[in-house]
Amino acid sequence: MKCKVCKRPAVINLRAQNRGLCEGCFDRYVLDRVEKAIKRFKMFTRKEKVLVAVSGGKDSLGLWDILARLGYNPTGLFVDMGIHRHGHSERSRKVVEAFARSRGLELIVESLADWWGKGIEEIGRRVLCPTCGMAKRYLTNRTAVEGGFHVLCTGHNLDDEAAVLLSNTLNWQVGYLARQSPVLEAWHPRLTRKAKPLVLLTERESALYTILRGIEYMDEPCPYSRGATTLVYKRLLNQVEWRSPGTKQRFYTLFLKNKGLFEGVAREEREGLKECERCGQPTWEGLCAFCRFVEGSHGDRGREVPEGDQVRP
Amino acid sequence: MKCKVCKRPAVINLRAQNRGLCEGCFDRYVLDRVEKAIKRFKMFTRKEKVLVAVSGGKDSLGLWDILARLGYNPTGLFVDMGIHRHGHSERSRKVVEAFARSRGLELIVESLADWWGKGIEEIGRRVLCPTCGMAKRYLTNRTAVEGGFHVLCTGHNLDDEAAVLLSNTLNWQVGYLARQSPVLEAWHPRLTRKAKPLVLLTERESALYTILRGIEYMDEPCPYSRGATTLVYKRLLNQVEWRSPGTKQRFYTLFLKNKGLFEGVAREEREGLKECERCGQPTWEGLCAFCRFVEGSHGDRGREVPEGDQVRP
Repeated sequence: MKCKVCKRPAVINLRAQNRGLCEGCFDRYVLDRVEKAIKRFKMFTRKEKVLVAVSGGKDSLGLWDILARLGYNPTGLFVDMGIHRHGHSERSRKVVEAFARSRGLELIVESLADWWGKGIEEIGRRVLCPTCGMAKRYLTNRTAVEGGFHVLCTGHNLDDEAAVLLSNTLNWQVGYLARQSPVLEAWHPRLTRKAKPLVLLTERESALYTILRGIEYMDEPCPYSRGATTLVYKRLLNQVEWRSPGTKQRFYTLFLKNKGLFEGVAREEREGLKECERCGQPTWEGLCAFCRFVEGSHGDRGREVPEGDQVRP
Repeated sequence: MKCKVCKRPAVINLRAQNRGLCEGCFDRYVLDRVEKAIKRFKMFTRKEKVLVAVSGGKDSLGLWDILARLGYNPTGLFVDMGIHRHGHSERSRKVVEAFARSRGLELIVESLADWWGKGIEEIGRRVLCPTCGMAKRYLTNRTAVEGGFHVLCTGHNLDDEAAVLLSNTLNWQVGYLARQSPVLEAWHPRLTRKAKPLVLLTERESALYTILRGIEYMDEPCPYSRGATTLVYKRLLNQVEWRSPGTKQRFYTLFLKNKGLFEGVAREEREGLKECERCGQPTWEGLCAFCRFVEGSHGDRGREVPEGDQVRP
């Protein structure tokens, strides 16, 4: 297969677009798609302070690299959740630190143990992705707000977003649907704007970019993520994608076009918000999810305010 | 495995409900589910004239049998579309006629060739499911309206509805989502009410019912349906169902609970309707889909009014 643009040997076949691209044209394609996402969804400008949440995986390191190359001068943030099994957190941290050093990029490291005295493995009988994610969002949001960053970027790609969308749709989680977006404004002084600049790139494209750039990344998934439902939805969508290339992209972008359907729900949810009795963060309960978590009432997590449940204990 | 109700040996394990049922209790369960669907969605009463579209497959023959047992006194309608490949239409018709005779039920037989001079195989280069479905809906609707029936029932089961819902959702077909319903009122004098009484039963339950009742049915699918996208979506949903029993039911019933989201779209679509220049049926184009089909302009089918595009040429 040859590159559709310059006829050199292709390194990837973009089936959804029915064209192959060589290494150089693919690199330009990736930068263009990210710049396009940033502009189209009004994520941030070159004058704003950008924080990138990096896990050490291919997506977040690739994103950090891309933003630096596009001239956004982003700071990295690694949050050590204290996952000692298979040395996961330690190894991830080393990968991130090595990358930052090699590129001369600024890196902030935070750890759950420093904030709370315990790592995620010391809570309850097993590590649950929703709890871990909630605590991680708390730390990343708080670091962004206190550091004066205008926006917090995460490495979610199209496959991630489409899988979450499928999950939200299969369960008709209209509140989640109302909030799912490539960019989420900071609608409270204790929240930061969130953006997902890889949202127009598939997982395959994002992975290939990181590999071609020679970036050393953590290629083992979190030892607790095995069997996560999101992976099932990704596999399902890949089956449809194989049969009808472009399905994932269409599913996600048509959803964004029709987001107005959920505007009423979003408004109702915002109007129903109270402030957490302990920390003052927006919540629908007396205590927000993080405060309940900290106080040890893990049995009844209640309803979490995704992207908006970070506390200042 | 034993029957949860009476402890006899179970014939089916209803994983979504975490219980097995024996033959007798399963039979009662099926009748109850159908009666429940008819009542909950206000489909029809025992005083109304009910027409059942029967293809000869397990779902439609099972439905006809159930409605008769529940005391609804339904008339069957078989539409011969002229699918001669593998003798499909001929064999299906014989199966339906034999069933009607054995039960002493009234059967109406219509054929596309009688109405239009040609069978579906004589149109274009290949038989397309959407065209065939549209023509079939035309004939069934017209037969129901002219025969003075209050309602036209089809054998769509939960798997059918969930697969269509998944397709409509993956493509964010908001117009289709607004119209997808277990019962659709006749909002025009030339349309009949449509109902799907098997909507609370899975394909597996519907098939087992027909088998246990000893009903001879046409067990070969239409020779043109191979590779139909709906089958792909059914397989995908079955994969999720296997992992999380109850997903299909939840997906469909939560959608119905949230149908209000699409009410604005449904209203807009109804308000945008015109009448077909040739036959007067509701349509969004100058000519409705069936008239365009009849006039041979198959290349540009335009937008069809599903469930509402039947003409009187």
